[in-house]
Amino acid sequence: MHTQLDTLSLHESLESPVIESMNFLNEVSQRFPDALSMAAGRPYEGFFDTDDVHEYLRLYESHVRAQSGGDEQQVRRTLLQYGRTKGIIHDLIAKNLATDEGIEADPESIVVTVGCQEALFLTLRTLRRDDRDCLVAPMPCYVGATGAAALADMRVLPVAEHSAGIDLDDLIRVVTEAKANGLRPRACYVVADFANPSGTSLGLDAREALIRLAEEHDFLILEDNPYGLFQAPDAAPTPTLKALDGDRRRVVHLGSYAKTGLPGARIGFVVADQRTTSADGRTTLLADQLAKVKSMLTVNTSPIAQAVIGGKLLAHGCSLRAANVRETELYQGNLRHALDELARQFPTGRRPEVTWNTPSGGFFVVVTVPFPVDDELLMHSARRHRVLWTPLHHFYGDGRPRRQLRLSLSYLTPDEITVGIDRLADFIREQCDVQSLQKGIS
Amino acid sequence: MHTQLDTLSLHESLESPVIESMNFLNEVSQRFPDALSMAAGRPYEGFFDTDDVHEYLRLYESHVRAQSGGDEQQVRRTLLQYGRTKGIIHDLIAKNLATDEGIEADPESIVVTVGCQEALFLTLRTLRRDDRDCLVAPMPCYVGATGAAALADMRVLPVAEHSAGIDLDDLIRVVTEAKANGLRPRACYVVADFANPSGTSLGLDAREALIRLAEEHDFLILEDNPYGLFQAPDAAPTPTLKALDGDRRRVVHLGSYAKTGLPGARIGFVVADQRTTSADGRTTLLADQLAKVKSMLTVNTSPIAQAVIGGKLLAHGCSLRAANVRETELYQGNLRHALDELARQFPTGRRPEVTWNTPSGGFFVVVTVPFPVDDELLMHSARRHRVLWTPLHHFYGDGRPRRQLRLSLSYLTPDEITVGIDRLADFIREQCDVQSLQKGIS
Repeated sequence: MHTQLDTLSLHESLESPVIESMNFLNEVSQRFPDALSMAAGRPYEGFFDTDDVHEYLRLYESHVRAQSGGDEQQVRRTLLQYGRTKGIIHDLIAKNLATDEGIEADPESIVVTVGCQEALFLTLRTLRRDDRDCLVAPMPCYVGATGAAALADMRVLPVAEHSAGIDLDDLIRVVTEAKANGLRPRACYVVADFANPSGTSLGLDAREALIRLAEEHDFLILEDNPYGLFQAPDAAPTPTLKALDGDRRRVVHLGSYAKTGLPGARIGFVVADQRTTSADGRTTLLADQLAKVKSMLTVNTSPIAQAVIGGKLLAHGCSLRAANVRETELYQGNLRHALDELARQFPTGRRPEVTWNTPSGGFFVVVTVPFPVDDELLMHSARRHRVLWTPLHHFYGDGRPRRQLRLSLSYLTPDEITVGIDRLADFIREQCDVQSLQKGIS
Repeated sequence: MHTQLDTLSLHESLESPVIESMNFLNEVSQRFPDALSMAAGRPYEGFFDTDDVHEYLRLYESHVRAQSGGDEQQVRRTLLQYGRTKGIIHDLIAKNLATDEGIEADPESIVVTVGCQEALFLTLRTLRRDDRDCLVAPMPCYVGATGAAALADMRVLPVAEHSAGIDLDDLIRVVTEAKANGLRPRACYVVADFANPSGTSLGLDAREALIRLAEEHDFLILEDNPYGLFQAPDAAPTPTLKALDGDRRRVVHLGSYAKTGLPGARIGFVVADQRTTSADGRTTLLADQLAKVKSMLTVNTSPIAQAVIGGKLLAHGCSLRAANVRETELYQGNLRHALDELARQFPTGRRPEVTWNTPSGGFFVVVTVPFPVDDELLMHSARRHRVLWTPLHHFYGDGRPRRQLRLSLSYLTPDEITVGIDRLADFIREQCDVQSLQKGIS
């Protein structure tokens, strides 16, 4: 007889709403492959070229060759053998952070990870000692963060978010209450630039205030920064939390090369320059503790995959801002185009009353509609109107439908955005008609 | 002021003996870079060629091109975009298992992982519901397995091992006692061919008996198989547990391409064809549950890294046995040479009484000496005799010194093995003299 396992005997994270969300959203897009997807947060692939992989690998090989004084065995060993747990492109990542973000990171404080997701899990798992340890996060929140917390058995305490990002007063309230209840808020997860899904960005004062709060209430800040690079070229970027952090070392900075490098390399990293002290007085970097956990998780990140990103960094003087000029222009253009199309479909003051945010960067727009958006409606939209989007409740992890949905623009051409928003408008009008009809009947 | 974290506030696995072991062993080899290392279990790198990476990538690109009818966008998307959580080379891995191991695996039951280490963690984390769930493992045991269990908060119950592998009577005793104590032994970890460190292999009858026991006592078998391929060419290989398992589906098969493919790709996999059933009656494969956990851990394994291994599989008709003829010959030769050198240094019947096992494959030999081997002695050996090896106590995770040490041969040339065993013999004789002297004095 086949072996049967009861799902109730498996890890609880498999029942978490966030995992159900990811699964459901995947299933919908597979079930309706002909629907136009405004749901996937993938980078644009029109500039992809498989030859780049070979070029980047050759560049990185030459770099190692030069560094080692032409030692070919060293080149082969670096790329093809097991490698350093913390990674091999940490020096290039440090240069990249200095060039693009004004972050001065000691290369030894960097752990190269399998995408930013592993960096998230490593950090949360390491900070989770027992049931009292929890993560604080503004809601709505990126599902990868709440998912990693679920897998690390770490409770997430929601904090309110307003149009200018995390609500700092609510953060103080949540942290203070948690401590009064015997909990230990270990860290606050935050995307300071163009949060997913809400598109909000924190201003400079709020960033400074957040770091001061972290010091005062003794928690870390986990700064996730996947979209910060894609600012309008004429905008003066606000410094990252890590750039402002300096010697206070309150900020653990999480990075991803999935959007700015190549998603297929699956390279991310974490800067963890905090000091840890053991009972016998030995001090080390938090990065070294993360590396120990990584040695039990994935041993090390593929040096071949690291070399691809290392080569791309070398090809562009360690500036991915420079490497992403076309991409930034495209994402900015897509965003403007989507906002124009929404304005065309839903003129101010006319019914139905549909509104949306106007982020200055990132991959997403959040649309507010006059009816609650649940998964049934998404299925209907996919089947009948052939357009996919994401009900916002999936980013709250509580299954309670909100009157909001997220549109993803990164993966599309302007023509596709026009078609997608046309279809979305048809869907929204149809739903408003259904509502009026129901009100008329009742 | 710098942020300080007390290590006692971090995850308990960071204090586990196995993590301390990995750390200590790394430190020793870094501290004594001039010592000849018979400690690292790395594959031989004399055959490495960075051009292979490019060739394998091109081969896999052509494969996708052919499969998709020449769709270049599909080729770029497959290699460079985010990808399927369960991986993209699952079909090639299934062919590889059929060709080399006689395992008939449904490709849908395969999850491609970041090395075998991620496969181990995924499986253990998924099987860990609460404190009662535990892993059973013969001791001495590969540290990656006990390390993954520590990170998954899963207790490990040790089972005795004898010269023919896991002691099945002791296994029954341990499982029965555990259940009587309210524990749930979820799985038994086993390396059926050339276990690390002990070099033991299970006979056919023992394999059949183990699967029957797993059925009877309702636990899974986690079969880890990193060395099975490196058998003597004239040996008739014993079928893997997974090949014997068939429709019983008791065996979760863990695989690694670090030794047979390329370590730098960091590609492993797990075959998990067990059925899971949820409260609402939905059934799915355990592989799909592992994939959900993976989506929170690393999202997906780098398709570029997968393509490198996929290309190597394609280059050799999906047989890594065929691809590793030179390597197998080398490892077999190294093993014979090490056994010859040990016999030359320590002739039977002469003092000091030093013995060793004679595995028919794998990377390791275990040497038994007349004195307890602790970490102090390793440091002394490194400093004074310039040879590194691994005290066997590190594979028990209890810090209690045994009279045994492990020699690793995979990474070395025959000349290096000669030098290494010369130095080891000097060290052993010196220690025996110290012992006699101490006995004379006391």
